[in-house]
Amino acid sequence: MHSPEIFPALDDETSLQLNTDGELRHLLTLKGFGRGMLTELLDEAEQFVSRPGRKAIRSRSLAGRTVANLFFEPSTRTRASFDLAGKRLGADVLNLDVNTSSRKKGESILDMIYTLQAMHVDVMVIRDASAGVPAFIARNVDQHVSILNAGEADVSHPTQGLLDLLTIRQRFGKFEDLTVAIVGDIAHSRVARSAAQGLQTLGVGELRLISPPSLAANSNEMPYAKNYDNLALGLRGANVVMALRIQRERIADLDGIPDGDEYYRHFGVTADRLRVAAPDVIVMHPGPMNRGIEIESALADSPVSVITQQVRNGVAVRMAVLERVSRIMASN
Amino acid sequence: MHSPEIFPALDDETSLQLNTDGELRHLLTLKGFGRGMLTELLDEAEQFVSRPGRKAIRSRSLAGRTVANLFFEPSTRTRASFDLAGKRLGADVLNLDVNTSSRKKGESILDMIYTLQAMHVDVMVIRDASAGVPAFIARNVDQHVSILNAGEADVSHPTQGLLDLLTIRQRFGKFEDLTVAIVGDIAHSRVARSAAQGLQTLGVGELRLISPPSLAANSNEMPYAKNYDNLALGLRGANVVMALRIQRERIADLDGIPDGDEYYRHFGVTADRLRVAAPDVIVMHPGPMNRGIEIESALADSPVSVITQQVRNGVAVRMAVLERVSRIMASN
Amino acid sequence: MHSPEIFPALDDETSLQLNTDGELRHLLTLKGFGRGMLTELLDEAEQFVSRPGRKAIRSRSLAGRTVANLFFEPSTRTRASFDLAGKRLGADVLNLDVNTSSRKKGESILDMIYTLQAMHVDVMVIRDASAGVPAFIARNVDQHVSILNAGEADVSHPTQGLLDLLTIRQRFGKFEDLTVAIVGDIAHSRVARSAAQGLQTLGVGELRLISPPSLAANSNEMPYAKNYDNLALGLRGANVVMALRIQRERIADLDGIPDGDEYYRHFGVTADRLRVAAPDVIVMHPGPMNRGIEIESALADSPVSVITQQVRNGVAVRMAVLERVSRIMASN
Repeated sequence: MHSPEIFPALDDETSLQLNTDGELRHLLTLKGFGRGMLTELLDEAEQFVSRPGRKAIRSRSLAGRTVANLFFEPSTRTRASFDLAGKRLGADVLNLDVNTSSRKKGESILDMIYTLQAMHVDVMVIRDASAGVPAFIARNVDQHVSILNAGEADVSHPTQGLLDLLTIRQRFGKFEDLTVAIVGDIAHSRVARSAAQGLQTLGVGELRLISPPSLAANSNEMPYAKNYDNLALGLRGANVVMALRIQRERIADLDGIPDGDEYYRHFGVTADRLRVAAPDVIVMHPGPMNRGIEIESALADSPVSVITQQVRNGVAVRMAVLERVSRIMASN
Repeated sequence: MHSPEIFPALDDETSLQLNTDGELRHLLTLKGFGRGMLTELLDEAEQFVSRPGRKAIRSRSLAGRTVANLFFEPSTRTRASFDLAGKRLGADVLNLDVNTSSRKKGESILDMIYTLQAMHVDVMVIRDASAGVPAFIARNVDQHVSILNAGEADVSHPTQGLLDLLTIRQRFGKFEDLTVAIVGDIAHSRVARSAAQGLQTLGVGELRLISPPSLAANSNEMPYAKNYDNLALGLRGANVVMALRIQRERIADLDGIPDGDEYYRHFGVTADRLRVAAPDVIVMHPGPMNRGIEIESALADSPVSVITQQVRNGVAVRMAVLERVSRIMASN
Repeated sequence: MHSPEIFPALDDETSLQLNTDGELRHLLTLKGFGRGMLTELLDEAEQFVSRPGRKAIRSRSLAGRTVANLFFEPSTRTRASFDLAGKRLGADVLNLDVNTSSRKKGESILDMIYTLQAMHVDVMVIRDASAGVPAFIARNVDQHVSILNAGEADVSHPTQGLLDLLTIRQRFGKFEDLTVAIVGDIAHSRVARSAAQGLQTLGVGELRLISPPSLAANSNEMPYAKNYDNLALGLRGANVVMALRIQRERIADLDGIPDGDEYYRHFGVTADRLRVAAPDVIVMHPGPMNRGIEIESALADSPVSVITQQVRNGVAVRMAVLERVSRIMASN
């Protein structure tokens, strides 16, 4: 939809994310973050994890700040998660669901961004179906504005990656000895990419990517991962199994997998199939689930599932990131 | 749309509404509430009725709590009323207007509910076009979450019932000697059902249901009420006349009533027709009105009308219910 | 769409805007305001202009008040601006985007207004595609409710007018010696009308309206202005050039201007064409811009452009107006 001239692929997104003092200013991707930064963010997020049945954890660290949720792609869950994260830190939250049909050129995105910036929006949370949009925006805002990527094409979804890392760490404490298997449409998954980048940085024991051949990642994209096209083999000994949401329209393009039932038969994560996994295996899913397609419904609700914890951690991670980027904002 | 297996008719909604200490946890229906509970809720609501021209009454009793308005059926007024009620008690309010077209199975509703629960939403306000959804949700949430029914198919609209009761009580003080006439599409009206249930519990003198024969309630549903198909007879001596909103598409199905004009001629509540009512008669309508169809426009704006008070009381009733369910939540 | 009986043209909008003590109660139009009132509003707005890179200016003067944004015509920017203005003054803000397709009669607008009034909404911000709606509503609300016009057909957009005046005053200090040229679809522009009315009151040196002949204002509407159908002549010596957004469908109706490119060739404001303007010329645009149609893209981003300041001033002006109308509200 957008030409590459407008949103060029960038090599310096990492440096773009930090200010000259090395402090977090934008969150665009987990790629390039060091272990120290990831660990700090997870530690901070841990402070914001509310306990079930207790009052939600709150602070006033964003009081007087304005967070705009600028969703060019519809989302209920991620938008709600950022909305609550902002409100629980005392920020004013502006929700803008913007139809992209009227968005013709990169310039008009910038005009909207400049408008929000002139309204003194401090943090812009961006979800967009086009690759490169969050970095393009980050490169063009004033230095006192922070951009948070809330889902970018099939490229990146860093807060999802962080919540996945946090969920795994809560259960296992460390990453070195773990085998993590991600199952499904790897090729089109920003969730898989952000999780893989974070896991690699934190030194995961083994990362496996399981998918039908036509939905595998490009072979040189994640050289540190092992690719499987057989679910049973890929699950063997896994400590963490992350099932990805599959778009129904993708299934139609798969050789020999005509529908959701057939997909489930080959790539659905089920309790029965997990018998070859490690005894302490946990099952994850970014939501929303297609129960009975990529994951067995009963499994999603079983004690093995940490899907609810992922959602809870999502609010905590977003609070931590908001709190972090607000530290470098002017205090008056 | 939903199969009965998913949202079964329930006999124990009443017990579901109270915790083991008998305190209000969910508000699903007025059916089965005792006179004590209804009177307490009305007494509390009375404390939240703001006076015109004065500042709105506020408190901080829901500070730190999150209320999600989850409307699977569109609504401007009821949503705004719950939104303001939550904000005036200091809660964070999350508004989610959810298209049900993508909602195929009971499971996916629960996934959304579990997601909000994991985000530490304390109260979920549910409006749904399918019968049984609020109770189904209430049965499945964690014990620290409260469900409030904001309109359920043609079954129940308990906060509307409470505001109707409050409005009547403010004018007449008691219910024993009153004749209350509800006029219109009784068969499909959750407003009529909730009002009738509350009035019956509070010992209303006489309850009349006036409608075209094909829009009457099932004869054994409300045995305590008298059915009329003649407006003039039904209004005779009435102290309270509640006109219901009629869907234009219902009129088309009525024998001998081809359009709105003809409906008005037979069942429109007018000042002229009210001459047979009690001298102190008041006129109510749940809104939004079809003026000139179910109610005479001038009558709706006359001193006999308490429609504005109903709206005002609506915010107060919702504040009272929110305040009440929050009492049993953990204080830390 | 609305018959003249329902929303009659009014001569007394000015008096309607002030209470019996001469204090601002509604903001419907700038027409008829004296220089004193305009200057006071601009002075107050100046106090609310946040400085880039600093925290947004805030107060608690609307704490406990409720502002409803009732937008019958879609808008992202103006709605966001009023939303933030309300929140930064501590108000509860209710956002209602209302589809007008279901709005058949003036009565049903009033029913919605009466509903919000009964919910203790203190300020209603109204945007509507029909002329007369804000005044019609102002005439019908209770005396403790304020109506702010956020865009009314092609008639009036008073907060936009105020932000334009403020932006000009910030740059030039006064209006007497200035030549202001407004360029584009004058005939259909509420922005042009409100700016012209304010400029005239504040004693602008010369006001020029530049447009294709078929998009000129009626010749006796603004007798104090000079009409031009030639851009080069109209820009000569101008200190302020305001380019208006043009609807693409308007262009199709223009003789000899078949498309946007041709429009740009005749009426696009460019750096090159501004060489005949005053050396201190500034360029304004109400947004959103059609870059390359009514304004040269590079010019909009150049130091000559004050478009960003306009947006910043927009929040300040709306805060000032909200603060002002809240002064006459009951304090308890």
